[in-house]
Amino acid sequence: MQPPFDARIDACQRRLEDAGADLVVCFPSPNLTYLTGFAESPSERHLLLFVPRDGSPALVAPTMYDEQLAALGVPSLELWDDDDDPLAAVERVLEGYELETDGDAAPTVLLDDRMWTTFNHDLRALLPEAEFGLASTVLEPLRIRKDEVELDALRQAGAIADRVSLEIRSRGEELLGTTEADLAAEIESLLAAEGGGEPAFETIVASGPNGARPHHHSGDREIRRGDPIVLDFGAFVDADLEAGTARYPGDQTRTIVVGEPPAEYERVHEVVAEAQEAAVEAVEPGVPAGEIDRIARSVIDETGYGDAFVHRTGHGVGLEVHEPPYIVDGNDRVLEPGMVFSVEPGIYLEGRFGVRIEDLVVVTEDGCERLNGSPRGWAVGDRVGQ
Amino acid sequence: MQPPFDARIDACQRRLEDAGADLVVCFPSPNLTYLTGFAESPSERHLLLFVPRDGSPALVAPTMYDEQLAALGVPSLELWDDDDDPLAAVERVLEGYELETDGDAAPTVLLDDRMWTTFNHDLRALLPEAEFGLASTVLEPLRIRKDEVELDALRQAGAIADRVSLEIRSRGEELLGTTEADLAAEIESLLAAEGGGEPAFETIVASGPNGARPHHHSGDREIRRGDPIVLDFGAFVDADLEAGTARYPGDQTRTIVVGEPPAEYERVHEVVAEAQEAAVEAVEPGVPAGEIDRIARSVIDETGYGDAFVHRTGHGVGLEVHEPPYIVDGNDRVLEPGMVFSVEPGIYLEGRFGVRIEDLVVVTEDGCERLNGSPRGWAVGDRVGQ
Repeated sequence: MQPPFDARIDACQRRLEDAGADLVVCFPSPNLTYLTGFAESPSERHLLLFVPRDGSPALVAPTMYDEQLAALGVPSLELWDDDDDPLAAVERVLEGYELETDGDAAPTVLLDDRMWTTFNHDLRALLPEAEFGLASTVLEPLRIRKDEVELDALRQAGAIADRVSLEIRSRGEELLGTTEADLAAEIESLLAAEGGGEPAFETIVASGPNGARPHHHSGDREIRRGDPIVLDFGAFVDADLEAGTARYPGDQTRTIVVGEPPAEYERVHEVVAEAQEAAVEAVEPGVPAGEIDRIARSVIDETGYGDAFVHRTGHGVGLEVHEPPYIVDGNDRVLEPGMVFSVEPGIYLEGRFGVRIEDLVVVTEDGCERLNGSPRGWAVGDRVGQ
Repeated sequence: MQPPFDARIDACQRRLEDAGADLVVCFPSPNLTYLTGFAESPSERHLLLFVPRDGSPALVAPTMYDEQLAALGVPSLELWDDDDDPLAAVERVLEGYELETDGDAAPTVLLDDRMWTTFNHDLRALLPEAEFGLASTVLEPLRIRKDEVELDALRQAGAIADRVSLEIRSRGEELLGTTEADLAAEIESLLAAEGGGEPAFETIVASGPNGARPHHHSGDREIRRGDPIVLDFGAFVDADLEAGTARYPGDQTRTIVVGEPPAEYERVHEVVAEAQEAAVEAVEPGVPAGEIDRIARSVIDETGYGDAFVHRTGHGVGLEVHEPPYIVDGNDRVLEPGMVFSVEPGIYLEGRFGVRIEDLVVVTEDGCERLNGSPRGWAVGDRVGQ
C-alpha cells in the first residue's frame, strides 16, 4: 500500500498489539477511508476490511470494485459476485488468520463503530467464541491527530470558507431582499468557484428570529435591513494523495448585520466573540476538551446569557464533519498536537435573533492555529472591521 | 400518531407478538422513516425509536429535534441535551418496559439492521441478559409490500423518469459531442424540471466502451455517432403524507444509439429486450424471486451471451433504492402483491459496449404492472420505435 496508508496500517497493527486485540474489521466508513483511501457509501453488499494484529490486511468486496481496489494495493482481495455467498469470502479470510486456534484465550475482534448491525451479527455468528469491541479503541487515537496530508486539506478548506465569507460581507446592501435559501445556494456556488468540492453540510443562512434556531433550514424568509444573519458553511477539499481518496471539510460561522442591528444585539455579539476568543486562547496540549467548553460557557454565564447557549462549544473535524474530540462539558479527553476542532459558542434569543461565531483550530505544540482568519465582527460592506 | 404510521406501528407490534420477541429498536434508517415519518441521517448522536410488543413506542432524541418530533405524535419522547448522558434516557425507556422482569425467559430485542455497532454495543451492555436479533425479521415483511401511499409516489417517480427518457431520445443528433458528465447533469436537471426531487442515485451515462462497466461513473468522454449509450437514472418523489416525510425513487435504464449501431449491437439489444420482457411476463404472486432471475438469464444463456450478464436481474425499491426482494439466483422468497422491484438484465462486452434495459414493476393480484412505459428500443429522434 502507498503512503500514508502503509504507515496507518502499521500504526493500527501496533495499537492492536498494545490493546491485546486480534483483529479490526472495518465497514464502508471514515475508518475504511482512513486506512485504505477507499471511500464508498455503506450498502447491503458485504464490503469489509480485515486488519489482523499479525499478518496482512484483506478486503472482502463485490467484484464490481476490482479495478478501484487493485489500484489501492490492499495485499489480499476476496472478491465475490452477485451469485456467490459473500459470507464464504468472509470465512476464507477469517480462516487465514487462524483466530479460533489462538490458544486458550478467546480472540478479541474490534468492529467498525459504524458497522451495520446486520454485518455485526454475521460476524458474531461466524466467531461464536470471540469477544467484540469497537474499532475506535485503536483507530480513534490515530485519526484524532491529523497528519500533514490532512492538515493541508483542512487549511485549504478553511481558506476557501474565508474567501467566501469576505465576498458575502463585501456585498453589503445587495444582500437585502435575498431569501435565505437563495443566499445559501449562492454561498455554495461561491465555495465551488473558490475551489471547494461539495458542501460539507447543509449551508445555514438563518436571518432575524430564525437565527435563534441553531440548526435552522434556510428558507423563504427575505433578509431585511437590521436582521442578524447567521452564516454557517464550508466545503470539502480533497487531500493530495497518490492513490485513493479522502476529503476534509471547512466549517465556519459568522453572524452579520446589514444596517443597524436590533437592541441588545451589539452586546450579545460582543459576548459571543469574547467567549470564542477566550476559548481559542485556552487551547493547548494537556488541557482537557471539557475545559475549553467551560471557559466559553463561563464568559457567557457571567453576562447572564448562560441559558441561551444551548449547545456544546465544538466538535472535532477530519474525515467526518463531527468527530472526536467533542468540546463538551465533562469531556476529560486531553488535547494533543494535531487535533482539529471547532470553537463555536452561540447565544440564541427566541423570537428575536441568534449569534454564533465559529472557527476551526488545530492544536499545535504550544497553543493552536486558527484555520479561519476572516473578520469575526458583524458589520458588512464598507463598515467591516467596525 | 397519524396514518399510515399508526397502522404500521400496530402491524409491527403484531409481528413482534407472532415472533415471540419483546422489542424493536430503530436507528435513523429507512425503518425509522417507515414507522414514524422521521427522516434523518445517522450520526453519533443517540436517536433511537423503541417499539415494544406491549405498550407505547418511545423515542430517545437530541433536544434540537423537539419541534419536528412533536409534530409526528410519537407517544413518548425522551429528549436529551448535549450535556446530558443519552444512555440515561435510553435506560429510562427500557425501565418503563420492564424487559428484565420478563419471567424466566430472556427478553428478545430486535435491532435495526443498519444500527451502528456503537449503539448495538451500548444496548448489549444495558441488557446483558437479552438475546439480540434483527429488526428486519418483523419489519421487512411489512415494508416489502407497498401500501397505496407508497405506490402513488413510486408511480409518479416512474412517470417522471419516462418523460425525461422521451425528452433525451427526442434530441437525437443534438446529443453528439456532449460529454457523459454533461448529459448526466442535463438528465438530473430535467428530472427536477419534471417534478422530481434529488437524483435517487448517481446518474449513469456510459457511452461506447464505457457501457461495458455496469457502474460506470459518467466522465469526460464525448458521445459519438454510433455509440451505444446506457442511461440509468431516476429521481426521488415525496410521498403524500399528513405529517412526516418519506421519499421513493424512480429507477429506469435505456440504451440508445444515435446513428448506425456497431456490429452485433442490434442482436445484443434484441436479446436483452427479450430477456427483460420474458422476466417481466413471469412476475406474479407465488413465483420465487430467483425464478425471475433464472428466466432472464436463460434467455441470455441460450444466445451464448451468458458470461456477459454479470449482475443480478434486479433489486427491490421503496424507501431504499436497493432493498428486498433481490431478484437473484437462489432467492426463494415468494413474490407477493405490492412488492416493487427492478427487472434489468444486461449484456456487457468488454472494450466494446454494454446494453441494459430496466423497468420497475409492482406485483399485482394476477401479474404485474410496469412503472415505466417509455420506449425500450435503441433508436432516437424520428427513428423511435424502430
